[in-house]
Order: sequence, then structure tokens, then C-alpha cells
Amino acid sequence: LLGDITRKPSRSRGTGRAVANIALCKYWGKRQLELNLPRTSSLSISLDPLGSETTLGLSDLPGDQIRLNGREMPPDDPFSRRLSRFLDLFRPAETAGFVVETHNTIPTAAGLASSASGFAALVLALDDLFQWNSTPRTLSILARLGSGSAARSIVSGFVEWHAGTHDDGLDSFAESLTDTWPGLCIGLIEVDTRPKPVSSRQAMTDTVNTSFLYSSWPQQVDSDLAALKTAIRQRNFDQLGRVAEHNALSMHATMISAWPPILYWSPETIRTLHTIWRLRQEGVPVYVTMDAGPNIKLLFLEDTAPMIREKFPKVRIITPFAPPDPDTL
Amino acid sequence: LLGDITRKPSRSRGTGRAVANIALCKYWGKRQLELNLPRTSSLSISLDPLGSETTLGLSDLPGDQIRLNGREMPPDDPFSRRLSRFLDLFRPAETAGFVVETHNTIPTAAGLASSASGFAALVLALDDLFQWNSTPRTLSILARLGSGSAARSIVSGFVEWHAGTHDDGLDSFAESLTDTWPGLCIGLIEVDTRPKPVSSRQAMTDTVNTSFLYSSWPQQVDSDLAALKTAIRQRNFDQLGRVAEHNALSMHATMISAWPPILYWSPETIRTLHTIWRLRQEGVPVYVTMDAGPNIKLLFLEDTAPMIREKFPKVRIITPFAPPDPDTL
Repeated sequence: LLGDITRKPSRSRGTGRAVANIALCKYWGKRQLELNLPRTSSLSISLDPLGSETTLGLSDLPGDQIRLNGREMPPDDPFSRRLSRFLDLFRPAETAGFVVETHNTIPTAAGLASSASGFAALVLALDDLFQWNSTPRTLSILARLGSGSAARSIVSGFVEWHAGTHDDGLDSFAESLTDTWPGLCIGLIEVDTRPKPVSSRQAMTDTVNTSFLYSSWPQQVDSDLAALKTAIRQRNFDQLGRVAEHNALSMHATMISAWPPILYWSPETIRTLHTIWRLRQEGVPVYVTMDAGPNIKLLFLEDTAPMIREKFPKVRIITPFAPPDPDTL
Repeated sequence: LLGDITRKPSRSRGTGRAVANIALCKYWGKRQLELNLPRTSSLSISLDPLGSETTLGLSDLPGDQIRLNGREMPPDDPFSRRLSRFLDLFRPAETAGFVVETHNTIPTAAGLASSASGFAALVLALDDLFQWNSTPRTLSILARLGSGSAARSIVSGFVEWHAGTHDDGLDSFAESLTDTWPGLCIGLIEVDTRPKPVSSRQAMTDTVNTSFLYSSWPQQVDSDLAALKTAIRQRNFDQLGRVAEHNALSMHATMISAWPPILYWSPETIRTLHTIWRLRQEGVPVYVTMDAGPNIKLLFLEDTAPMIREKFPKVRIITPFAPPDPDTL
């Protein structure tokens, strides 16, 4: 794949935009580290308008110049190093540098990773710069090389990332489901915005290597993925919520059963979980998903939004399939 | 077994004493509900002086008279009903009632189940009343019929409960390891003493039935049990602590991955766990175990006791193998 693409820019600058995503069935564990090949398929929902926009061009100066949200990033910053290592795959000459300007519309406080939309936007900008006119499948594979979940940010809506089986990863890419779901809402609750003590990347590796329980995780994913696709097709919200919450908590369970234990939850996470479960017992149809961190994302339907706003005044509500109705939200 | 024993009392009253225990490798999941046959073996340490003392006799009045810590228990109380159902196995005549007087020296606040020592003391009292002169193995099997972990409270010290394989459960009993460990301490930290929202019994069943991850639990137990026995034989404290903590957190992980999720932890549990992990990072050799509840039990050696007292002023310290040294503890 990388051998086939041109590295001769067709225009002076390329631009790409990609949306963030949150997995309803998580990507958790790699079968190959270098290529970010996952052990299982996963399924996400995109979080428009949160995402990344990237513009890039080439320069004759050695080294990359990277700006993030208007701020020049030092070359030895972990962010710059990760980006430059990825850009090594695409340099016209070893000495060529890229000039990269990235804007994230993901509030840092939302507790959402920006690497997914970030690497997807970067790949789309490269496609624009070099005028590859690549298929979404190819772009998804390229984005995956930067960050696994970036494979899912090339397209939008409900997105399935197929694990694939090939060693070269050419069958490990994401594509959109045809179904949509106007009225579906995601509520972002910020619990703790301090930097994570363990990166998701590290947590994933440590879990695979040390958790006995992890060996049953792929069976759960098989079951959850099928159940989620049915729930989406039938717009069965309770099934969607139940399976997504079960899946997210089970992912955290694999970490809790790692050694040393990985527990991203803060006291506030627990308090919020218990609040949500109490609400659900009272009949409010709301479910939870969480990534590898302490923050909580709610799943609910539009008509529950006023209640959610009341209980969680700081919630940020995203409506992936419909522009928000200002009267309801 | 039950067919062979006499139900004719040899004396007017029988008495039994048994100590509480806490599992270092947990009993979690049954292969048979009626007989409390476990899916896996388990290993515990007894918590002398915490335990139960029971005296019982027969009366001609129908129905049992049950006193717990000096208080007459109503016959329809769940405690009385469970006891009477168990005593049904031993009545000389269907109409015979037992007079039972039980004292628990387990502070309710310690977050320790009293059913283990309670049923063990009851069986020992029955043995005394009927003068069966049963072997510890037989008594362990009988106690198991009342409450699974009671099988481990018939004997003391480090105790292994063999899962067994027979359908009749006659090979599922507990016995003491020969090893002891003077200097080993257990610290009880009370986090939340409110009644549990879900009983351990129910949590166990729900976990086995709904957690995908549970299917890997028996492999972990195999590994942990062997590692704990080695650690005990070699008095390797770090290995003992590591394996016991990993085992306990993994048991909780199987519950968190059940549906609906079972999360016994309160915000205070999380705060305490993070405190302990911080202490350990600072070089303090202290580990955690937890039963199906929010409370935390520390594992440490005698020379760490002053530090533990300082950090957790409310801790109750138990020294299973040695009388506490008042200067140190």
C-alpha cells in the first residue's frame, strides 16, 4: 500500500477534516503492535461537530514544523514526535519537512481522545496534498497506522472497523453502516481532566499481557457487535444502551484484573455511575459508555435530554445524526 | 453422609466455636447451588479472635428459638429462616425445635461476613450435641451445606477448600495447610457498613450467568492458588500480597462485567485503593484484598504495622498466627 502511493505533492497545501468517534463496542487489544492491528472488530459513533482540521504542506527545511491549536509545538514534545514518526512514511525525500497546522474542536475537558480525529484529518490532508484520490478503505488503513481508532474517524455515522485477519493489515479498515439514528444523543460528562497516569496504549498492552480475564474478551466482542448492529437496525435503544454499557464496563474490568491493576476511575466516576444507575432504576432510559479514562459518556434519546440537563448541568450533548433542536436540548 | 449420622442427642446442650476467615484466593461461583459446590478451590486465612460461638439444644416446642448476640430473632427474619432451613437436616423429629444461642465476635462494622464462622460454629455445636465425633473433613462438608465459605471455618490457619469433582460433594471440603506465618497481619478497614444492595450469593449467581469474562476466572484461580501456596511455603510476602490482590480485584472485575453491572465499590473504596497504591509506590509493602462488598482488608507484615496505623487510624489489625505484640501494634 505504502509502496504504491505517490509522494510528489500536486498542490502546495492539503487540507483534511475528520470527526471524533466514541466506540460502543470497544477496540481493546492488538494482535500486532507496529501496524495497530486489533484483536477484534469494533463499532463506533461519530461525534460531529467535535473533531480535527489539519492543513499541511512541504518545506525544504529539515524537521517538521507543527502547530496545534495555533501553538508551535517543540519537536521533542511527545505529540510532535508521534506525528513526525508517522509523517516519515510519506516524505518525498528523507530530508523533507512538513509544515502542519492542526486545530482540534474537541474540548480538552471533554475527556475524549483527539488522536482518532487527529490522525484521520492528517491522512485526509495528505490525500489532498498528494492528490491520491484514495478510497475511504485505503485512507482508513493509513489512518490506522497512526492511531488504531483513527481508522474509524475517516468516515462518519455508525462505523464498524473490521479486525481483518491478514498479517499486512490490508483487510483491517473501517466503514460506515448505512443506518442512521436521528434523536440519538451522547452526553459528555467531565469527571477528571488531569493527565492519565497510564496511557490507553500502555493500558491495552499491559491488560493483554497480564489479565487472565482478557482471554474471554474477544467472545464478548463477537456477541456485543452482533447485538449492537441489530439494535441499530431496529432502533432498539434499550438494547443499544445495555450492550454498549456492558461492553465498556467489561473493558474496564479487564484493566482492573490486570497486574498491576489499572483503575482509571476516580471517586467521582463511581458517584456518577451510581447516580446514573439510580436514574435508570427510576425508569430513565440512560446508559453509560467510557473510554480508558475516568470520564463518562451518556447515551440517551432526545426526549430524555431535558432530564439529563437537569441532573448533569455541565453535560455537553452531541447529536451525531441531527442538528440539535434548541428547544429540546 | 446425612443418612449415616445420628439425630439422637447425647447431652442436653452442645457448644461450638469457629473463627472467621478471609479468602486470599476467592470462592466465586458454584457448580451446584443446592450443595454449595464451588467451581474452583479456594484458600483462606483465619481471623482469630473474630468468630462465632454457638450453643444449642433441643426442645419439644415446634419451631426454633434463635438468639443472636443476646437478641431473640423473629422466626420470619431472613437470618432465622436460613438457620432453620439448615437445621431441618438434623431434626430428630419433624416437629422438634432447636434452641440456638449464637454470639458473633465479628464487629458488624468490620465488613466481614459472619455466615462462615456462624455455620461452622453451628455444625460444631451439633457435633457436640449429638456426639458424632466427626472428622474435620465431615464437619467441613456439613458446614458447607449452610454456607460455602463455612467449609473453611471448621479448621484454622491457612485453609484450602478443595473444589472436588463428585456430584455428591463428598470430596468438597477444606483442610489446613501445615504452614504458619507469624508476623502476617490483616488490617480491616471499614468503608461502608450499610447493607449491601445485592447479596454475595446473588452476585455470584448473576456473575456466573451474565459475565463473559467469568469464563476465564477458573484459570486464574488455578494459577493463583498454586502461587499462593508457594508464597506461603517460602514466606514470600510480596508474592502473597500480589497474588491475593490480583485475585480479589479480578473477582470484582467479573462482577463489574456482569449484567446488570455489580459494583460494590463506593467513592471511598476508590479513594482508599488509590491511597494504598500510592503507599506501595513509595515502597510500603502493603496489599489489598476485598470480599463482595465495599470494605477493604490490608495485608502486611508486623514491621509495617506502625505505618499502617498512622495512615489508617481506624484500622483493626488481626494477627492470625501470633498474639499481637502490644509494642508494635
